[in-house]
Amino acid sequence: MSTIAASHLYGEIHEQPAVLESLLRLEQATIRQLAAQIRRREINYVLIAARGTSDNAGRYANYLLGAFNGLPVALATPSLYTIYQRPPRLKNALVIGISQSGKSPDIVGVIEDAKRQGALTAAITNFADSDLANQADFVVELHAGEERSIAATKTYTSELMAIAMLGAHLADDGDMQAALAGVPEAVAQVLTVAPTVAQVVERYRYMTSCVVIGRGYNYASAFELALKLKELTYTLAEPYSSADFLHGPLALIENGFPAIVVAPTGVMLPEIRDFIQVLRQREAEPVVISDDAATLALGRTQLPLRATLPEWLSPLTAIVPGQLFAMYLAYARDYDPDHPRGLRKVTETR
Amino acid sequence: MSTIAASHLYGEIHEQPAVLESLLRLEQATIRQLAAQIRRREINYVLIAARGTSDNAGRYANYLLGAFNGLPVALATPSLYTIYQRPPRLKNALVIGISQSGKSPDIVGVIEDAKRQGALTAAITNFADSDLANQADFVVELHAGEERSIAATKTYTSELMAIAMLGAHLADDGDMQAALAGVPEAVAQVLTVAPTVAQVVERYRYMTSCVVIGRGYNYASAFELALKLKELTYTLAEPYSSADFLHGPLALIENGFPAIVVAPTGVMLPEIRDFIQVLRQREAEPVVISDDAATLALGRTQLPLRATLPEWLSPLTAIVPGQLFAMYLAYARDYDPDHPRGLRKVTETR
Repeated sequence: MSTIAASHLYGEIHEQPAVLESLLRLEQATIRQLAAQIRRREINYVLIAARGTSDNAGRYANYLLGAFNGLPVALATPSLYTIYQRPPRLKNALVIGISQSGKSPDIVGVIEDAKRQGALTAAITNFADSDLANQADFVVELHAGEERSIAATKTYTSELMAIAMLGAHLADDGDMQAALAGVPEAVAQVLTVAPTVAQVVERYRYMTSCVVIGRGYNYASAFELALKLKELTYTLAEPYSSADFLHGPLALIENGFPAIVVAPTGVMLPEIRDFIQVLRQREAEPVVISDDAATLALGRTQLPLRATLPEWLSPLTAIVPGQLFAMYLAYARDYDPDHPRGLRKVTETR
Repeated sequence: MSTIAASHLYGEIHEQPAVLESLLRLEQATIRQLAAQIRRREINYVLIAARGTSDNAGRYANYLLGAFNGLPVALATPSLYTIYQRPPRLKNALVIGISQSGKSPDIVGVIEDAKRQGALTAAITNFADSDLANQADFVVELHAGEERSIAATKTYTSELMAIAMLGAHLADDGDMQAALAGVPEAVAQVLTVAPTVAQVVERYRYMTSCVVIGRGYNYASAFELALKLKELTYTLAEPYSSADFLHGPLALIENGFPAIVVAPTGVMLPEIRDFIQVLRQREAEPVVISDDAATLALGRTQLPLRATLPEWLSPLTAIVPGQLFAMYLAYARDYDPDHPRGLRKVTETR
């Protein structure tokens, strides 16, 4: 087995600061035009069509566009378009398709139908000449370069960045724009935790299942980290909002049960800290990702987040220790991080 | 330990036909008025606020109101209201709160805000004098009687029924109304599978994790069955749409991995059958819930669904073998089915 640093996955995780930098530089004009068009038309809500990692970026949009732009977000049910052929009416909707490849027929199908209905459409994709891009009124290109590892990392954070840029342009807020400019450097700082993570994962060599907890903006981070753990390490990792977890799944917790908690600084932090205390009372094993020292100290395992961003941007950094955790854990288990069993890079579902 | 038949859970599962009958009889007028009001106002989309089991009923609404009434459905993010205090604008929205108790502050908070914004609001709840009911313009009462088991069963199917009734009234479709009338009898027929399920569960005594698969209308069934397995049997059960499962989590599947598949007759069935074949190729262990003999035959374990309803109503029957499976499995593990560890009947989150 070759060294981990020679893997595509390692390279792509470490390319993230540069990719985010390019996206910030190259797509401002397109996103500004899209924002202007949204303002011009009477948009009441946003519908997002996506699968897998891109769907997790959609979860971020749900909070971001809701909180800063007052736009409720619905995640599309592609089978209503493709299998049942009963698409809902899209009056006053902005419809966004998110897909790295721009190829999945069900996602393309939602955008096609939205266009037929006269809705405003946008594609967020790494391929400006894909079917998805060809259908949409606006195309935000990720500029992530080819992603060769099957598990998506740099395209996830660049999808988050595209959404954050849209939120900032829609809000027309100079502070938000300034904060965006600080993201690539923050991600670079967070990546310096890699050697720590490489050691920490040994403890989880034989972990077969866990839950991953995040809430608010970082609900997306919980889903994305759980997906990386499933794809790369075959751990049955289930994502939860801390609030949903208390409505039933809390019964799962027994002594030593691992719970990875995404807990960056922000309005949500006290809530999440209370939740970690519940985990400790039940003798679970909290693995904490945080830039807040007191919160980090509650973790049996501590994954320090070495940069602090405004909470609305924290998903861009908070996922990075998780990406490293999943990568090093795959390596600790002698799995090939670039080619998880049973998966192909482009999955075409209908 | 007393016999399973003496448990509240057993009683409540078996009360379902009678509860659905009452709901059908007692709430037609209210739901007809709500439908008329939706038609009168220019409603562009629906926002649903719910947690746990009620959130799964919301997933059903997502497909039903989309397919039959052309209404896109968004599931609310309560923390935008309660924690971030940045509620989105609810222009031309119908906002529905679903909660057995009507008590969870975050769900009540969403309805309060919606009312303040002038949106049309409705509550679906078992308590007509609850905080939730007091806030809403329309109250659909479940008439399920007291639910004493902590794991919700009869209130879940009655929430589905309330949504199905709303869909039928909105579509103003006589065939749909006639089909609704057949549901209580169909649920009664499906309950006769109980002795078979009681035997089958022995095989899963030491199952620690599984996935539960459903798609389209029965995406909700996958989530609800997974939640029952977590609450009652502490199995790490993860729900998935078959399409999402192919985008990453498929890597989890190894020889013997249990996958419970909800597969009633309908437009989705060929899709689901193909998916079961993928599971078989990868040597997973499919547990199949179906009324279709050829599909059932693909299961290593077969849970026959002894009644066929139109696909849009199938979640009302398809969950029942799953409720029985979770109940008998809890009993096989010597757990108390009425009082899962760590849970209370009413969970108040903000």
